[in-house]
Amino acid sequence: MKLILPDSKVLKQSLDAIAELITDAEFVVNEYGLSLKAIDPSQIALVVYNLPRDSFEDFKITGQKKLGLNIPSLQQIIRRAKPEDKVILEVGTNKRFNVTLQGTTKRSFSINLLDLSNSELPNPSINYDVFIKVRAPVLADGVKDAALFASYLTLKIDNENIIISTTSTKGELNSETSLTSVEVLDKDIKNEARSIYSIDFLESLLKGATNDTELEIYLKTDAPLKLKYKIQESTIQYFLAPRIEE
Amino acid sequence: MKLILPDSKVLKQSLDAIAELITDAEFVVNEYGLSLKAIDPSQIALVVYNLPRDSFEDFKITGQKKLGLNIPSLQQIIRRAKPEDKVILEVGTNKRFNVTLQGTTKRSFSINLLDLSNSELPNPSINYDVFIKVRAPVLADGVKDAALFASYLTLKIDNENIIISTTSTKGELNSETSLTSVEVLDKDIKNEARSIYSIDFLESLLKGATNDTELEIYLKTDAPLKLKYKIQESTIQYFLAPRIEE
Amino acid sequence: MKLILPDSKVLKQSLDAIAELITDAEFVVNEYGLSLKAIDPSQIALVVYNLPRDSFEDFKITGQKKLGLNIPSLQQIIRRAKPEDKVILEVGTNKRFNVTLQGTTKRSFSINLLDLSNSELPNPSINYDVFIKVRAPVLADGVKDAALFASYLTLKIDNENIIISTTSTKGELNSETSLTSVEVLDKDIKNEARSIYSIDFLESLLKGATNDTELEIYLKTDAPLKLKYKIQESTIQYFLAPRIEE
Repeated sequence: MKLILPDSKVLKQSLDAIAELITDAEFVVNEYGLSLKAIDPSQIALVVYNLPRDSFEDFKITGQKKLGLNIPSLQQIIRRAKPEDKVILEVGTNKRFNVTLQGTTKRSFSINLLDLSNSELPNPSINYDVFIKVRAPVLADGVKDAALFASYLTLKIDNENIIISTTSTKGELNSETSLTSVEVLDKDIKNEARSIYSIDFLESLLKGATNDTELEIYLKTDAPLKLKYKIQESTIQYFLAPRIEE
Repeated sequence: MKLILPDSKVLKQSLDAIAELITDAEFVVNEYGLSLKAIDPSQIALVVYNLPRDSFEDFKITGQKKLGLNIPSLQQIIRRAKPEDKVILEVGTNKRFNVTLQGTTKRSFSINLLDLSNSELPNPSINYDVFIKVRAPVLADGVKDAALFASYLTLKIDNENIIISTTSTKGELNSETSLTSVEVLDKDIKNEARSIYSIDFLESLLKGATNDTELEIYLKTDAPLKLKYKIQESTIQYFLAPRIEE
Repeated sequence: MKLILPDSKVLKQSLDAIAELITDAEFVVNEYGLSLKAIDPSQIALVVYNLPRDSFEDFKITGQKKLGLNIPSLQQIIRRAKPEDKVILEVGTNKRFNVTLQGTTKRSFSINLLDLSNSELPNPSINYDVFIKVRAPVLADGVKDAALFASYLTLKIDNENIIISTTSTKGELNSETSLTSVEVLDKDIKNEARSIYSIDFLESLLKGATNDTELEIYLKTDAPLKLKYKIQESTIQYFLAPRIEE
């Protein structure tokens, strides 16, 4: 296996997002590109990541490779790349993973491949009632607003509004964005839906998004929230478990 | 009561300054605008703040309202405003205070009004011997210089110079600015004056000032220092108790 | 003694570099300028610093003066200078050292001179096998790369490459820069050489270097590393003891 990225940008941003939730995980490399599916240690959020083969300058693989890696270690290495450095990913001898940053200097880093005997991860297939595509701040700002007062928020989307709300002894928040707002880029509302999610997790899930990011939100009452957006040419998807009120 | 500010700038900067000294305080809203008079918990500094009615886009009030508020909570909410957001201040039901940030999204925050049974605050009326108006760094830099060595500094102003000095086992500072300097914008010296003030408090009092701020300084030997400056179109005044040497 | 620098830049940057290693030290002022020779508390690194007489706008000295100073105190004072301030250095009465920052305000700081009864410091005279001059990042990046995995690195230079390497249970680094790279500005290789140095110390030694700094490296197997570069018009040299493998 030998994969060459023309620069480090997409990998740097993607690892910064993934490392928010995941410590050890298995990357899969096959003819379609590089992908990852992992669940956070508390089993509340599932991450599905794909970097397509087209992103690579060179992509040599026979069959499929599973690469168990410590995400923070890989992140630290990729952060050492200069903007103009090519990034070369290889499997070395002795269960080692080699990352070479190739600029005027050739810097080769080598870390251990991990044996991760994953239990098979779920492949959520949910019939969502709500789909909307918005600029990321529509959700991200509401999450930060809610964080002033609480650890959980209620996300409700109906035919007219996106409503983020929370209440505690500290205070109350109610944030309403009309579906006719210019920040709403697309929508498909079958039924209104309403669920409660962890504010900390929502903040982690949105770490890779910028003000311009087009964010796809899939919602169903008391079901996992699905978020999907692009980090450069790669795609990241999250499924976040709801808190069910008793 | 319903007050609308066309943007959040003046309130954001003012609360950042006020929160340096004050935790809970009563705002007063009447036909002249929004004002506050509060003393810090150690009773060393008095803050008097005024945001005139003209600053508001809409200003509905009958009679006078007293609003007991936790300043850091209000500050956190106003910090969530985007530059283009209108800020709407209202009294809600159930002793609540409502702040709405109105942009493409309408975000309503609600916090408790506090019952603050203030003792009447002093209204200092002092015949100052010295008045000068300077660019804020003339005082602010001297305060930071003095902070290298001590917790109190001596401020002396005579017919020729503004002198900031301090001494400790760590070292000695003597800072002199001539009253003919371009940084001195106005002056009226009846008699020279000299007092000792807390460096920490002076740093807090100057938090709302920038390099361009025109700072009015009123000084009298062993009397409270009066500082006055504008934060956008609002006015903030401080009275800082001197340390009297025995 | 009275020395006047036209601005604070060179002194600010130099003290930031020196303070990385040295707490108390004796500056020497004589007809050639201002200099310092000091060893760090653990006796692993020797610093030799020279600011030539030409840098000063005014330079009055009779004979030679030794000035025992606490470097962090002096650093704090010089950091208070504004870019356009002149810096005046004088010996005051009562074993005091006076620093005056002269701008629109005249700020005089005074600290104690220290009695440092130095033992005579070594004057290393080593026949180096390798001399190269490179842009500072060639070494600085390798040091930061190695810091991901270990506390010591191996620096090896032969006729073809500059090689920085380290290995630990965390991972392995191998960084190679060809001597034909544009980052290599000069070289004189008598024999290849290879030694082990502390990564923490190397990071401290490079604190005063920027991306454009031309860094002279002198290497000999199991001998102190000599690094030399300019901070503005002043010169700083370091000798760093190797770790000898048993």
